[in-house]
Amino acid sequence: MIKNVLASRYASTEMKNIWREEGKIILEREFWIAVLKAQRALGMRIPSGAVPAYEKTKKQVDLKKITEREKILRHDVKARIEEFNSLAGFEEIHKGLTSRDLTDNVEQYQILKSLKLIQLKTIAALKLLSKKAWLHKTIVLAARTHNVTAQLTTLGKRLAMSGEEILIALRRLTHLIESYPLRGLKGAVGTLIDQQSLLGKSSKLNLLQTKVAKFLGFKQVLYAVGQVYPRSLDFEVISALYQLGAGFSDFAKTIRLMAGQELATEGFQKGQVGSSAMPHKMNSRNCERINGFHVILSGYLAMASGLAGDQWNEGDVSCSVVRRVALPDSFYALDGLLETAMTVFKEMHFFKHRLDSEVKKYLPFLCSTVILMETIKNGMGREKAHQIIKEQSHAVLTEWSEGKTERNDLTTRLAAVPGFPLTIKELDALVKHPEKETGLAAAQTERFCREVEKWAREYPEHKKIQPEKII
Amino acid sequence: MIKNVLASRYASTEMKNIWREEGKIILEREFWIAVLKAQRALGMRIPSGAVPAYEKTKKQVDLKKITEREKILRHDVKARIEEFNSLAGFEEIHKGLTSRDLTDNVEQYQILKSLKLIQLKTIAALKLLSKKAWLHKTIVLAARTHNVTAQLTTLGKRLAMSGEEILIALRRLTHLIESYPLRGLKGAVGTLIDQQSLLGKSSKLNLLQTKVAKFLGFKQVLYAVGQVYPRSLDFEVISALYQLGAGFSDFAKTIRLMAGQELATEGFQKGQVGSSAMPHKMNSRNCERINGFHVILSGYLAMASGLAGDQWNEGDVSCSVVRRVALPDSFYALDGLLETAMTVFKEMHFFKHRLDSEVKKYLPFLCSTVILMETIKNGMGREKAHQIIKEQSHAVLTEWSEGKTERNDLTTRLAAVPGFPLTIKELDALVKHPEKETGLAAAQTERFCREVEKWAREYPEHKKIQPEKII
Amino acid sequence: MIKNVLASRYASTEMKNIWREEGKIILEREFWIAVLKAQRALGMRIPSGAVPAYEKTKKQVDLKKITEREKILRHDVKARIEEFNSLAGFEEIHKGLTSRDLTDNVEQYQILKSLKLIQLKTIAALKLLSKKAWLHKTIVLAARTHNVTAQLTTLGKRLAMSGEEILIALRRLTHLIESYPLRGLKGAVGTLIDQQSLLGKSSKLNLLQTKVAKFLGFKQVLYAVGQVYPRSLDFEVISALYQLGAGFSDFAKTIRLMAGQELATEGFQKGQVGSSAMPHKMNSRNCERINGFHVILSGYLAMASGLAGDQWNEGDVSCSVVRRVALPDSFYALDGLLETAMTVFKEMHFFKHRLDSEVKKYLPFLCSTVILMETIKNGMGREKAHQIIKEQSHAVLTEWSEGKTERNDLTTRLAAVPGFPLTIKELDALVKHPEKETGLAAAQTERFCREVEKWAREYPEHKKIQPEKII
Amino acid sequence: MIKNVLASRYASTEMKNIWREEGKIILEREFWIAVLKAQRALGMRIPSGAVPAYEKTKKQVDLKKITEREKILRHDVKARIEEFNSLAGFEEIHKGLTSRDLTDNVEQYQILKSLKLIQLKTIAALKLLSKKAWLHKTIVLAARTHNVTAQLTTLGKRLAMSGEEILIALRRLTHLIESYPLRGLKGAVGTLIDQQSLLGKSSKLNLLQTKVAKFLGFKQVLYAVGQVYPRSLDFEVISALYQLGAGFSDFAKTIRLMAGQELATEGFQKGQVGSSAMPHKMNSRNCERINGFHVILSGYLAMASGLAGDQWNEGDVSCSVVRRVALPDSFYALDGLLETAMTVFKEMHFFKHRLDSEVKKYLPFLCSTVILMETIKNGMGREKAHQIIKEQSHAVLTEWSEGKTERNDLTTRLAAVPGFPLTIKELDALVKHPEKETGLAAAQTERFCREVEKWAREYPEHKKIQPEKII
Repeated sequence: MIKNVLASRYASTEMKNIWREEGKIILEREFWIAVLKAQRALGMRIPSGAVPAYEKTKKQVDLKKITEREKILRHDVKARIEEFNSLAGFEEIHKGLTSRDLTDNVEQYQILKSLKLIQLKTIAALKLLSKKAWLHKTIVLAARTHNVTAQLTTLGKRLAMSGEEILIALRRLTHLIESYPLRGLKGAVGTLIDQQSLLGKSSKLNLLQTKVAKFLGFKQVLYAVGQVYPRSLDFEVISALYQLGAGFSDFAKTIRLMAGQELATEGFQKGQVGSSAMPHKMNSRNCERINGFHVILSGYLAMASGLAGDQWNEGDVSCSVVRRVALPDSFYALDGLLETAMTVFKEMHFFKHRLDSEVKKYLPFLCSTVILMETIKNGMGREKAHQIIKEQSHAVLTEWSEGKTERNDLTTRLAAVPGFPLTIKELDALVKHPEKETGLAAAQTERFCREVEKWAREYPEHKKIQPEKII
Repeated sequence: MIKNVLASRYASTEMKNIWREEGKIILEREFWIAVLKAQRALGMRIPSGAVPAYEKTKKQVDLKKITEREKILRHDVKARIEEFNSLAGFEEIHKGLTSRDLTDNVEQYQILKSLKLIQLKTIAALKLLSKKAWLHKTIVLAARTHNVTAQLTTLGKRLAMSGEEILIALRRLTHLIESYPLRGLKGAVGTLIDQQSLLGKSSKLNLLQTKVAKFLGFKQVLYAVGQVYPRSLDFEVISALYQLGAGFSDFAKTIRLMAGQELATEGFQKGQVGSSAMPHKMNSRNCERINGFHVILSGYLAMASGLAGDQWNEGDVSCSVVRRVALPDSFYALDGLLETAMTVFKEMHFFKHRLDSEVKKYLPFLCSTVILMETIKNGMGREKAHQIIKEQSHAVLTEWSEGKTERNDLTTRLAAVPGFPLTIKELDALVKHPEKETGLAAAQTERFCREVEKWAREYPEHKKIQPEKII
Repeated sequence: MIKNVLASRYASTEMKNIWREEGKIILEREFWIAVLKAQRALGMRIPSGAVPAYEKTKKQVDLKKITEREKILRHDVKARIEEFNSLAGFEEIHKGLTSRDLTDNVEQYQILKSLKLIQLKTIAALKLLSKKAWLHKTIVLAARTHNVTAQLTTLGKRLAMSGEEILIALRRLTHLIESYPLRGLKGAVGTLIDQQSLLGKSSKLNLLQTKVAKFLGFKQVLYAVGQVYPRSLDFEVISALYQLGAGFSDFAKTIRLMAGQELATEGFQKGQVGSSAMPHKMNSRNCERINGFHVILSGYLAMASGLAGDQWNEGDVSCSVVRRVALPDSFYALDGLLETAMTVFKEMHFFKHRLDSEVKKYLPFLCSTVILMETIKNGMGREKAHQIIKEQSHAVLTEWSEGKTERNDLTTRLAAVPGFPLTIKELDALVKHPEKETGLAAAQTERFCREVEKWAREYPEHKKIQPEKII
Repeated sequence: MIKNVLASRYASTEMKNIWREEGKIILEREFWIAVLKAQRALGMRIPSGAVPAYEKTKKQVDLKKITEREKILRHDVKARIEEFNSLAGFEEIHKGLTSRDLTDNVEQYQILKSLKLIQLKTIAALKLLSKKAWLHKTIVLAARTHNVTAQLTTLGKRLAMSGEEILIALRRLTHLIESYPLRGLKGAVGTLIDQQSLLGKSSKLNLLQTKVAKFLGFKQVLYAVGQVYPRSLDFEVISALYQLGAGFSDFAKTIRLMAGQELATEGFQKGQVGSSAMPHKMNSRNCERINGFHVILSGYLAMASGLAGDQWNEGDVSCSVVRRVALPDSFYALDGLLETAMTVFKEMHFFKHRLDSEVKKYLPFLCSTVILMETIKNGMGREKAHQIIKEQSHAVLTEWSEGKTERNDLTTRLAAVPGFPLTIKELDALVKHPEKETGLAAAQTERFCREVEKWAREYPEHKKIQPEKII
């Protein structure tokens, strides 16, 4: 048999339990029970022992038996109905339902459960990140724009920067969870004709929908769908997953860059083989993998895009094979990404001495904004001041590139420029205290940590999330 | 000069005004004024006449003059600063700002304004759709799944089905508008170092951000960004636009299908030439165009996907050229889609006699579920009943396909099957009243119309939206 | 264990054999043997019995044993080396190779084999299509543009139209197969340093590459790669697959449209259940599935796009997880598409009486171009003639839509227009022989069939391809 | 008026001339003349002076006049016909053509011309790259995998690596140019019915196609199309453009990485302002822009994907608005990318002293493969040797990271490990001559340069390509 790569190598057990065949059968049974309870509450006669009997047996999944039934019945849904009935000793489930009433709703139930798991896991990951951010909130770092050193910031702030991006996506994910609507029991073309013949009054039909939705954890129910719920909802889900991956992916790229400059390592475990041919190597393979997962998600996003806006009339199954692939696999991919990210957040390490050396080396450059402003204050025109600082900086860079010096004597050089309004003493004072040139970086880091704390308090169940060992 | 196709052929004047060069300059000036007001409120000394002077001249845009200034200054932002200063007779704007503090924020201001315009236009479009849905809420229609007739519904319900999908996307769009956060004034790497040297205390720095945000209509401000706001926010915006287009695109496909069956026309204006070579043709070119716009949006979505998760360190401008294209053009595309959709919703026409003929022709099929259920109630096993109805239905279809008859005599045929438990009289009674077989379709349509009404009341400004003449 | 959906439900055994774990191990062994032979030919001393011993045991794959070895060795490649050595009783393979020398090349070998299988399967599918096209080459059909009837064509031509599109893609696929270059044995960063120390002279190193390539069926070898072959090659492969799917996807949509007009069925097998709730239904689910597969391919295309152009320096493994998913799964998806398409091409059926009725109903419209031209020839201005024909056509359509008539009396109406230059007799003569109004449709169909024949003769192995039973 | 950003800011004049309105009108006229010549050759009576008269006036484009005509005629194609007729003093063009016969073919003519321009420009770019590669073919470079130093290579080889990737894409582009088929004159649904009534015999009809194709530079003509040529051809074109961009994009990323390590600059022109706030900065903005263009192309690729496989029946115009955007804009984007790349290839500069320092610093690591192999040769087991080298390497890295030393004393450390089979002398000998550890890097670079030379000789017109000044 050929394995699903994402599930078998990267996704967590909990996510797999939602989507694996046995797991789906259990969710299906929970759905049937929810319907049954709702129908009973609305006056349909259901024998008193039925619901408990179904509840009691819902986790007894025997795939072989179901397959045998299917061979005889030649219908997959029927086989699963009969198996459950036989386990419970009742014949009460699936009344007035079409196949889609079962499958579309159960898939949405899987989606909602997966979204909630992703939500908790994201909070758990943010906690780990915020811990590191807090720890490093005042470590001075040479911020880079265009991949070259720019101004000073702090290491904690750099972590918070990705963290805030993740928080934005978490807010959107949470809004999706809150508003994600269930298709409900609507029949073959969405008119509820079959349930109507069972339950009669339309007030009851609406109650049926909302009761089932509530049992399953949905706060909204659709009311005007056709055969299927709109596939743009699947797009909404997968685009939320893609957005959530973005902040992690940004962060992973930055770690890969920092590793290349020996400022950081994603963590390198005792006994790990970096490269069989090159024993010295410590590779950021987990961060690379995070970036890989994000690319994978872009593919499932494209699949979901291809379904959204392509419904003909009341619907058909041209979406079926696509959703079989894109729905579970996009959750596996993001789940794998989060597992990997948690590991990185735990194990990553920053080389403070190297961070410090870099700051020292570039310090006069990193303060070029400050020098520029001070020069202007002291009477030189902005254009001229900018020109001089640029020229002298480039002269330093040129000497470096030619190996003539390793020192950054920008201030000495500037002071020597005829007419430059600042003395070497004044200039050196400006670049003396890097820790004072980080603006609000530490405060911004703290703010990030506080925001994470709020989420963590609101969703305490995140505590049960532990990254599994990754391969 | 080469025109932007989407802007020049399809987008509305109002959308173009937000994104055209002159429009952007005005928004930029509004942003500077907002900053100026906030800085004044926080204690910076600003001459008393300055704000009014800027306000008064902000709409005087002379692109030529700005270009001339740029040639001399060799810097675009500086040119625009000097021009505005010269118009107002003050030199107060842009203090403590970097170029990105201006451009990133102004682009977000354009985005927010565009989102709000799209929101109103969507409501206006929904109003038009809901009007038609209400009108046709009880017109019986042969619903199709897999593009073949399935069960009965109503025409209004079919419209409501797309309408509900649009409402879901509108809800998401609205959440985005409410939560869309401004980058704010953060300086070159996000630490606020430059504003700090102007305003001092960090409490003031935060106030500065929120005040500017409020002036511009934003409810949230980011706090830990680097050089740029996270590009996954652009992805969030464009994915919301794509999702919004989906319901319209579904609807357009269904109209194209209905036109092929002579059930509907998207509207064919007096004097319109369908085809110069084939004078008889009435083509659904507007609906085809709606589908085209949705495909275009999928392209801008791919561009935004390519930026999300690809930030290196504190940022760079690898995103720049992409955003110059994808941001305005995705809004033009969706705006063009909405303009076209409003026209279709106004002008589309359904051929009731043809709808009715179709229902009549297929009626016994459309009631096959009901017949099946009644047959089972009367004692025949489900499997057997299904088999008989299927065989007899296919026999009717075969005779049709061979031209032997045009009648649908399924009930007669069923009654003649030995052992079939229903008489011809009973069977005919089941298929006599199609209007009773539409379940909750009419009620669902009404529900949709009520939901639209709520939105319309909450956003009364939608009334000013009128579709422009389309080419 | 969680199955790969595409492999387990849709792909053929032959395609799965290329990609399944056991299959890959065999290909890996073939690669080692190819390297061994080449090294021997270039003067490396290899014991005489080694190659035959490896050849003899290469298909003995015991996954469990390999896993056990891996647990001890903690290295997957090493485990597979030792297992193969132990089977053959020699220790000669993998000399001078790095892991990537093995994995990148073997993956390319899998890709090339898959491309060739797809090529044959495409030819087999085209044969089936061309058979149907030939059969229907003169069946008159009302061609549709904008989904409404336009002019006359033939049914065979409609099939040939999709067929020609597939042939274009087949030509591109074949060019890819011919030019697809092997990475070759290049070492850790591509400089061949390791092989150089084994074989010495660079002339030998190049020979080594070309010999291995030849053994494996490649005509080209790369010469300047780094750690990995350029990932834009994977993009080239998957974009060729996507392009190949397009003609099939077009065709599937047209069959779905024709089914909706009762002109065609994709084939409905005895005993097949169309819909459990609606016994009368015959759904084009295979055609829908073909469209679904094409959407799936668009997702793997997006993944491959995300890797192309994203190599850092000499390479890394950020592509790894993506390629694990996208490479096999895109082949499974296209393979499943082709399996489904072959089934449809075999089983699809066209309802000639219905095709004929449609032609009859619309005939005067379908000839509106001819009428227009004839009217102009007889002296009426083009504008005026067009206007009159349009008005009278629309009048017919209006009466139809109101149920006043079912006849198409356009010619009678035109003749009655004062000043219209053609008599009813002349007009009726123009629309009398639809079979004469199909232009070159039959000849075009024949041309298509001849082209397919050429391919079939050139690739006779296509004959062994038989569609497997689809679920 | 709103400008097309890609055209106005980035594309070359020559590319704009193909796609701008005036340019398209000229190409349209060339197409009409080609048809006219072919029709004459096939026996249609054309007045003798007609062709020269059209030829003579074909470049006189007066957009205003055409617009005026369009207002009166209410038909764009007719307006352009009458204008050209009026200029030439004949009424011979467009006989037997439908609008699509004109527009589809002319668009393909634009595409083919653009592809050929891209081909030449790619060769011109490769020449520039190969010049630099040749120059640096023996400069030793620390190759990086996973963004950390791995083994030795040469700088020229690194350039050749991207160059080879571009050559692969150029080969594919060239195959596309050679095989790109013209739709030809096929009439409204593809049956050639209209030309048939003009020219009679089908042999003439085929000749007409091939003659027109030849005039326009096409080697193939389609024969079984419907209203439009298959849109998967547009996908083939844009996917070739995307693939072509990949090698450049890889290269640009590597330059951005090298700039971050002060090994290279993309070129920084005298007077250029890197950053207005940070005078010291030299940013790789052109390389960032190249990456941006590649992301843009991924968007147009998604649009083309959305059209491929979505044809209904004989075609419609749902593709129209998409192609208006995606076709010109994808060419503008790639053209802008190539312009930028040529500038970078010309101006980029590598800091040899810095490259050398890096090699020196890491040398014992870069030779870890060699050390490992030599250690094994001298009798230590592979596992143990690997373990020791890894541990000692990491010890060096740790000391660096803690600032304890800047030296790389790996060889000393290894020699000191009890039982290590190599002496310090032997070890130092292994790492003494980096230039001998670059394997075939120089030869591979030369091979690349020779391949470029072949292309350059075959397409000498590439010499006229000069990069325009970029903004």
